[in-house]
Amino acid sequence: MLTGDRLALARLITQVENRSDAVPAIMKAVHGRAQGGYVVGVTGPPGAGKSTVVDRLTARLRAEGATVGVVAVDPSSPFTGGAVLGDRIRMQSHALDPGVFIRSMATRGSLGGLARATGDVLKLLAAFGLQWILIETVGVGQTELDIMKLADTTVVVLVPESGDAIQTMKAGLMEAADVFLVNKADRPGAPALMAELKFAAHLHAASATSPKDIAWEIPVLSAEAQNDVGVDALLVELRRHRAALEATGAFAARRRARRLAEFKSLLVEEFRMEVERAARAGELGGAFARVVDGTLDPYTAAHALLPVLRLRPE
Amino acid sequence: MLTGDRLALARLITQVENRSDAVPAIMKAVHGRAQGGYVVGVTGPPGAGKSTVVDRLTARLRAEGATVGVVAVDPSSPFTGGAVLGDRIRMQSHALDPGVFIRSMATRGSLGGLARATGDVLKLLAAFGLQWILIETVGVGQTELDIMKLADTTVVVLVPESGDAIQTMKAGLMEAADVFLVNKADRPGAPALMAELKFAAHLHAASATSPKDIAWEIPVLSAEAQNDVGVDALLVELRRHRAALEATGAFAARRRARRLAEFKSLLVEEFRMEVERAARAGELGGAFARVVDGTLDPYTAAHALLPVLRLRPE
Repeated sequence: MLTGDRLALARLITQVENRSDAVPAIMKAVHGRAQGGYVVGVTGPPGAGKSTVVDRLTARLRAEGATVGVVAVDPSSPFTGGAVLGDRIRMQSHALDPGVFIRSMATRGSLGGLARATGDVLKLLAAFGLQWILIETVGVGQTELDIMKLADTTVVVLVPESGDAIQTMKAGLMEAADVFLVNKADRPGAPALMAELKFAAHLHAASATSPKDIAWEIPVLSAEAQNDVGVDALLVELRRHRAALEATGAFAARRRARRLAEFKSLLVEEFRMEVERAARAGELGGAFARVVDGTLDPYTAAHALLPVLRLRPE
Repeated sequence: MLTGDRLALARLITQVENRSDAVPAIMKAVHGRAQGGYVVGVTGPPGAGKSTVVDRLTARLRAEGATVGVVAVDPSSPFTGGAVLGDRIRMQSHALDPGVFIRSMATRGSLGGLARATGDVLKLLAAFGLQWILIETVGVGQTELDIMKLADTTVVVLVPESGDAIQTMKAGLMEAADVFLVNKADRPGAPALMAELKFAAHLHAASATSPKDIAWEIPVLSAEAQNDVGVDALLVELRRHRAALEATGAFAARRRARRLAEFKSLLVEEFRMEVERAARAGELGGAFARVVDGTLDPYTAAHALLPVLRLRPE
């Protein structure tokens, strides 16, 4: 894979996606080379045109000679599942381009696991040498927000139809977004949505929850991605955000924070597997059986077990 | 609370929702009385009329003299958040009825935490003496499915408009549902959706993934909850499912399985807090710092820490 073999990359990604036993060895092997690649997250509600935005961005970046990885992550429910995979068909224009690597990922098992697998896939793509990595997710539920934390710059794509929903977006959306893109901007309601977002972005920049590592008021852009309108301006803002991060050291600080979060979630995930193993092996003791038969409350039992779980310094 | 003080119940629920330090003590105190109450889950896509179904079911149960708790859980993203709270307004017809207790819960912090908090709230409602407890969630993403695992019987409400989505529902939905209710059944497409669901339910009953603890083919009902049509038949099926569970011992077995899952997730959650505590206190040692600065890969560091985390029998 490190010599540019795309098939090898695809196979490693499959291992990571399936959380195979080889994952730790794989990630150890690529670690030293996995720090490159600028990661752009693209999220928003179903039907906002995220895939088209990703497609157009990819075309722009390729025209400049940069290599691009695209990861479409679908953590969605059975009710909306499959949309991302369907949209992938539109990315076929890049399917034969050796400078583009496209991969879809869907929920397998726990959602926490999905965010972690996605993080590992991003590292594989970076180690493969891709210069830009675009992650696309549907919606901005908690899982999507967790996945977006993997991005250096996050674009939230909205459409005039999402207007009502904006009422309720509040902190989560503002915290996730580095750039707002109002797509399908030729539709009624677009100017009102843009005005609303600009006002919210302005308030957010002044608020206590705004990240203070860089001076950044979330720009609000309009686009008609289907007609290739507004994509240049989006790329300009992505580069401006990247430059702002890199100029201040915030880029490095955020990557450190990301590694910390990743490490903590890895520890928790490993512990979850240990609990499953111990439960299967009957190693949780008598308290455990009493919880299952309902005679002991789980909090008392957990507190009895937890003293052995204290993390100790090396 | 155990003497029937509604305000005390509401305050305890708030403590549980906020995951206050008093939660373990609260849950220990109510444990012995928290095994009653039959829990019905109602889930489905936004706009399917779940709240109306819950409202009508509540009216039926109250007419029979049974007490009812309603928990509306909204784990949804900022894009759809708030719908459940809005729908609550319709439940106002029961707001002054002392035999009904209604509570909305929304995401605070992690989604895993939400499912756990919901489980604790169900126990409080059971300990309060409520005979039927209805949990309503929007959508059937992973969190909703986790919450539905808390129910003894789960009703999945669909509308003709959800027809396309059914294509992608697959295993998750079939595993969650004990009863399908096609609401707004006067709309075009309802007969086709019902036929499709019946066929899928029939296949599922014969499939390997179907739970074999009871002989149960998921019934497919039609309703116009707004016009109070089909609610009696729903209640008949709920009781038939309950009787089937209780007759075979499956009811007790499922509750044991639920307590097991609850206990495992509690252990993991407690460990997550321990990781956060240890990270803040700087107790994770030198490997930790090397992960954060990027010189050590997280898998190697995690494996170095994990030997101390082995669960030991008492």
